[in-house]
Amino acid sequence: MNGNMRNTGIDKESIVGALDALRGGNPLVHCITNYVTVNDCANALLAAGAAPVMADDAAEVEDIVSIASSLVVNIGTLNERTIHSMKLAAIAAKKRGIPTVLDPVGAGASRLRTETALALVGEIGFSVIRGNSSEIRTLLAGTGVTRGVDADPADSADDALGKTADAAVLLAKRTGAVVVATGATDIVTDGAAVFGIRNGHPLMARITGSGCMLSAIVGAFVAARQEHLLEAVAAGVSFMGLAGERAARDVGSAGTASYRTRLIDQLSIVGRAEFEEGARIERRA
Amino acid sequence: MNGNMRNTGIDKESIVGALDALRGGNPLVHCITNYVTVNDCANALLAAGAAPVMADDAAEVEDIVSIASSLVVNIGTLNERTIHSMKLAAIAAKKRGIPTVLDPVGAGASRLRTETALALVGEIGFSVIRGNSSEIRTLLAGTGVTRGVDADPADSADDALGKTADAAVLLAKRTGAVVVATGATDIVTDGAAVFGIRNGHPLMARITGSGCMLSAIVGAFVAARQEHLLEAVAAGVSFMGLAGERAARDVGSAGTASYRTRLIDQLSIVGRAEFEEGARIERRA
Amino acid sequence: MNGNMRNTGIDKESIVGALDALRGGNPLVHCITNYVTVNDCANALLAAGAAPVMADDAAEVEDIVSIASSLVVNIGTLNERTIHSMKLAAIAAKKRGIPTVLDPVGAGASRLRTETALALVGEIGFSVIRGNSSEIRTLLAGTGVTRGVDADPADSADDALGKTADAAVLLAKRTGAVVVATGATDIVTDGAAVFGIRNGHPLMARITGSGCMLSAIVGAFVAARQEHLLEAVAAGVSFMGLAGERAARDVGSAGTASYRTRLIDQLSIVGRAEFEEGARIERRA
Repeated sequence: MNGNMRNTGIDKESIVGALDALRGGNPLVHCITNYVTVNDCANALLAAGAAPVMADDAAEVEDIVSIASSLVVNIGTLNERTIHSMKLAAIAAKKRGIPTVLDPVGAGASRLRTETALALVGEIGFSVIRGNSSEIRTLLAGTGVTRGVDADPADSADDALGKTADAAVLLAKRTGAVVVATGATDIVTDGAAVFGIRNGHPLMARITGSGCMLSAIVGAFVAARQEHLLEAVAAGVSFMGLAGERAARDVGSAGTASYRTRLIDQLSIVGRAEFEEGARIERRA
Repeated sequence: MNGNMRNTGIDKESIVGALDALRGGNPLVHCITNYVTVNDCANALLAAGAAPVMADDAAEVEDIVSIASSLVVNIGTLNERTIHSMKLAAIAAKKRGIPTVLDPVGAGASRLRTETALALVGEIGFSVIRGNSSEIRTLLAGTGVTRGVDADPADSADDALGKTADAAVLLAKRTGAVVVATGATDIVTDGAAVFGIRNGHPLMARITGSGCMLSAIVGAFVAARQEHLLEAVAAGVSFMGLAGERAARDVGSAGTASYRTRLIDQLSIVGRAEFEEGARIERRA
Repeated sequence: MNGNMRNTGIDKESIVGALDALRGGNPLVHCITNYVTVNDCANALLAAGAAPVMADDAAEVEDIVSIASSLVVNIGTLNERTIHSMKLAAIAAKKRGIPTVLDPVGAGASRLRTETALALVGEIGFSVIRGNSSEIRTLLAGTGVTRGVDADPADSADDALGKTADAAVLLAKRTGAVVVATGATDIVTDGAAVFGIRNGHPLMARITGSGCMLSAIVGAFVAARQEHLLEAVAAGVSFMGLAGERAARDVGSAGTASYRTRLIDQLSIVGRAEFEEGARIERRA
């Protein structure tokens, strides 16, 4: 049945079963996120089967963490007040032992973002880091490693992917996190195993929120399957990408706002059968 | 014509006429609300016929209250700065004599939310309190009354509804507010009369913002019909639920984001005739 | 071909070419904007062909300005923290020589808004000011000129438009900015030349964000065509209005939320041919 994952070294059930666990568990996902895409993130979580709670004040984040099954921190519109809350929440989540996801939005674009992301990763530590290739490289450079991982404009697509994967592996080894580097092919790695995920669609880059929603969705999957973290992350990445593909099919030429609606629609529509059929994950190492 | 409200002890015109008053008056509704669903609230108000103004800084909320016809306070993403603004605005609104609506989002989930909601209700007072059953019970407990109102998992649906209604009545008596406790059947009470409203659809719980939009819509109805507060609140609750039902019919199996679009669409589409036909309000006491 | 701009004293290519420049250049537009419509603004920018970056903290706005091609400041949900950031960013943008757009949302509705808008215009200066007729008049009054520009309820539509145009010209002369006063006919002027733009649709006023998205879109056009500022602004205003017209045709009677989706859709669909055909700009002076 599942041609896409056959003979690829993946335990199919660990991927597809994560969606069952999410839908069955309805986990509470605490997000400290940006005000640009927060509504999309909340609706994406609800669509996928999780329960979102957005709370960003230092006076309450520890209370909220105490009832949540995972924490997602997104620095998209950070400020001094929310940075403090992010740190308090991440420390509380680590203490409680619930999985944590960091989306270092715009790391590299301002010192504040770079330094905040590095402080969150270096001083506290996250279970999962999800960024694009440039953000992952920024974090890697900040932790002291850059040589040989920078993509070169002259690189072939395969070379560029290889370098992104190398950067993700290095960052995973250095931080202990499962690292997701998203691009045409998404890389998911814990520093040892490396998955390449070929779901997704170029239209996802024509709307805001695709990356933020992905990080939130990963937060939902790891909340539901904390004991198989790497596979849960890969499942979340593949699930979001599959929704993006199916939305592109649905929307035809209707435009980018219709695409965004269809994308969140698909998060509520894709079930076990569609996921089993559509997930395109292969083990690279 | 209006089979749903015939022989139910409701003055039909007081319900349907509230929509006319809203559409005719285009009242300005000042919202201090959360950044998750604020766009939905603004669009819901515009769709229904009101004019939204979102302003949350202490340096301007009193100016904004001075030109508004009602104030809606929603604590969904509260922080120290906005809590201060909420208090200033609520005091100014009370002084001016315009109706005020409180949505105690997440009361019970953190001390900050519980204490803020109790302070707003206890120290200042609101014309309307709109929450789900759990939030209403949290407020009731905080004002000193809990015995006999907690729903039990073993309760039948009828018993649970009865207990929710009892809690709403007690909170209304204690605070002087019209209390709305939303659920499969929504309860609206001023402590004496009790309305049960059977509009709405389960899909409303699959998107973020249904509750926040309801509170905003109630703010619009009470702005238009301050002199018949209880009926205006009941009208707002029924109107929002009816939009939810009609949206579910429209959307078919398209998914939750499409449902959200259809829901706001219906707020702009439902007119007097549709409302008269579809409102399902009965007097329980 | 371009019947709408023939014999009107407009260099057609300067209008239509601005869209080409935008689509070809994919400029980074830095927005400090309100949390009500920020998601709409980001999606509108992406749809039109720009790259949005939303960042509002004083600790990073100068870094973000340093990589942006224009700055859009919108005071829709201002507070002390973000007002400070707006000033820092506007000063940095002016120093760098990138175009700046001010949307004085609600100027006149509170002292905080009026004073902030006046301080931004008077102490720092913006390349473009985009407001409705009432906001433009508020700024004009604050800079010392009101006589003869206030519209009178008894004015004919033509008289009212003439007075709005007079106000816009005066504000442009006084501030050195290109001023956009939006209404049934939009006025764009640098104090010497005056354009009247007859694109747009009444449904745009039934959703939140039309004005904010317009200001963001203008920011995208001026980022792409800084050397022809007046024409770039006129192109942006016409482009947004045309999208609004086409969306109204698409949406039929589906309701206001569907209209909002279609509006952003059209920003991603309208190309050179549609723009050349649909732009309705005439030179009034």
